[in-house]
Amino acid sequence: MTNIDDLPVRDELRGKSPYGAPQLDVPVRLNTNENPYPLPDALVERIAERVREAARDLNRYPDRDAVELRTELARYLTRTAGHRVALGNVWAANGSNEVIQQLLQTFGGPGRTAIGFEPSYSMHGLIARGTGTGWISGPRHDDFTIDVAAATEAIAANRPDVVFITTPNNPTGNAVSAETVLALYEAAQAAKAATAGAIVVVDEAYVEFSHGDSLLPLIEGRPNLVVSRTMSKAFGAAGLRLGYLAADPAVVDAVQLVRLPYHLSAVTQATALAALEHTDTLLGYVEQLKAERDRLVTELRATGYEVTDSDANFVQFGRFADAHAVWRQILDRGVLVRDNGVPGWLRVSAGTPAENDAFLDAVRELKKEQSA
Amino acid sequence: MTNIDDLPVRDELRGKSPYGAPQLDVPVRLNTNENPYPLPDALVERIAERVREAARDLNRYPDRDAVELRTELARYLTRTAGHRVALGNVWAANGSNEVIQQLLQTFGGPGRTAIGFEPSYSMHGLIARGTGTGWISGPRHDDFTIDVAAATEAIAANRPDVVFITTPNNPTGNAVSAETVLALYEAAQAAKAATAGAIVVVDEAYVEFSHGDSLLPLIEGRPNLVVSRTMSKAFGAAGLRLGYLAADPAVVDAVQLVRLPYHLSAVTQATALAALEHTDTLLGYVEQLKAERDRLVTELRATGYEVTDSDANFVQFGRFADAHAVWRQILDRGVLVRDNGVPGWLRVSAGTPAENDAFLDAVRELKKEQSA
Repeated sequence: MTNIDDLPVRDELRGKSPYGAPQLDVPVRLNTNENPYPLPDALVERIAERVREAARDLNRYPDRDAVELRTELARYLTRTAGHRVALGNVWAANGSNEVIQQLLQTFGGPGRTAIGFEPSYSMHGLIARGTGTGWISGPRHDDFTIDVAAATEAIAANRPDVVFITTPNNPTGNAVSAETVLALYEAAQAAKAATAGAIVVVDEAYVEFSHGDSLLPLIEGRPNLVVSRTMSKAFGAAGLRLGYLAADPAVVDAVQLVRLPYHLSAVTQATALAALEHTDTLLGYVEQLKAERDRLVTELRATGYEVTDSDANFVQFGRFADAHAVWRQILDRGVLVRDNGVPGWLRVSAGTPAENDAFLDAVRELKKEQSA
Repeated sequence: MTNIDDLPVRDELRGKSPYGAPQLDVPVRLNTNENPYPLPDALVERIAERVREAARDLNRYPDRDAVELRTELARYLTRTAGHRVALGNVWAANGSNEVIQQLLQTFGGPGRTAIGFEPSYSMHGLIARGTGTGWISGPRHDDFTIDVAAATEAIAANRPDVVFITTPNNPTGNAVSAETVLALYEAAQAAKAATAGAIVVVDEAYVEFSHGDSLLPLIEGRPNLVVSRTMSKAFGAAGLRLGYLAADPAVVDAVQLVRLPYHLSAVTQATALAALEHTDTLLGYVEQLKAERDRLVTELRATGYEVTDSDANFVQFGRFADAHAVWRQILDRGVLVRDNGVPGWLRVSAGTPAENDAFLDAVRELKKEQSA
């Protein structure tokens, strides 16, 4: 039998495993930050209707530029993020992962580098590797906030071409202030002043769950600042794979140089448009999840766990001498949480009230056993 | 206003334009090798039904490994291509472009090279560029068949990591024999014998329209041979963006090291599964298109044009002193064909009988004007 290592795979891939959380069949799955609320029936019907329409022309290539979808995404952002954007500011792809891949193909790639402040969304580094971009792991404080002095120093020293700032950060949950983003943006431009600056990607995948505001208005007058978003979380559509970005129109023009033609299928565009018609209902679920997230923080702290402040739909809790052993103990109680490899910490997604109760019961039980 | 050149885009992208045929609103569009037959009503309904089911769980990530879909694709290949393949031999992505991108990320990339024999599908070279893979343009005979002696010489001289063979070739239409593929495969393995060989990608996007058989059986015992396919053409589903490959299971394992997690949406998987249920009907359309393609070849030759032998759903015709001027003259008559930049030649997709009549009327008229 042929083995991967018998094939001429790239050296940096040898011995690696594919990214992805274990997909286990467990009663309560709180491991991938999915929205626990199924789409409402009216939206399911609307999706079937719009996809039926799209399927009639499925023999034709989809709208390569996804004009209607990008227009509606721009309308959504304008309405919710306090800054007016239009079609020309918005680009969409198959999940924010593909958005990030296109950004790295355009502004990173061989001979260039990207920096992230870790622990953060690990796909940033993995997509960097997949696009031949050198990866620099930047620092954080022990409380998982970005250490601005150390971060600007790392930027000045390494002169990265792309800077990733995840806010709210995944897997830690905490948000980044506009001041911090601006400090890193200025440092990145200064470090690359000789060559048109650096691209700063503000990854706002979870921003709808934040106590504060989106940093979208910062794109004004900053052509090198990109805000990336997704419909996976707030829109309850992880299965749809629809990510998007907002930036200066020049950025949107630039990523089109590397996007695969017709990358976004007609059924994806139709389904996303249907979901956008139901924005108000879906944002109602977001409010419920924010309340549940706050409850998780409060209850975990009351039970004696340490918890990182959370602006996301998940909560990082600890601290454990052996986080993976605790992950297993929680799993044994029928609840799947995530071990992201942050030493001492685990992450739990905010589920339905019943799912969160099951999780809280499990971790309270563990605490009692420890004390006994 | 900020311009692309004000941004820190990669040098090799500067001054480039996005790939893509002009999308013009013309009565008869025969420029992108789309299948002219809309999906049958029963299939449209089945798509709506399967997508409705999938939409109920859209808040969850899709099956990351697309197991049901890959199983059905394997069944289709086993049935139609004369070689038994299973789930483990098949991988699927958003269009064959994404399949090719994943292959180049795995087996090409920075410091490596790929070769194609041009003119051929121009995305091979563009995706090579997008993945940092060096691109080598290999030779063809004047009649657009592959010059095996020159091709093996180019392989020996350049020692490429990836070899693309498109059959039937796009935009020329001619098929490549198994003997030629095997000669190039052996040459590529010999040239890279020191480093686990080279990957040979046989791009069979149009193979269902061929007079001959698929080369899929060649994967047996050749772990470095990959056959890529698409549902865009034979399945009449260009709007779906579903490409796939068949190869040794080790290749399928390897591309999973670079695939973006959850790259294939639940609606894409559901729609593709619905289309596969209607394989027989869709292959019936393929038979009609093959007859129309043969009619185009015969009629164009009878009218005095040169035509390259075609095993695809399109026909290359010429020869013109100024192909682009003729493209414009045909467009002026309401028919959009494709100028792929092959000097002296244009390409027309096989449409419905009425569309093909409109095209033939236009080119007959042009011929008369020339003679007058």
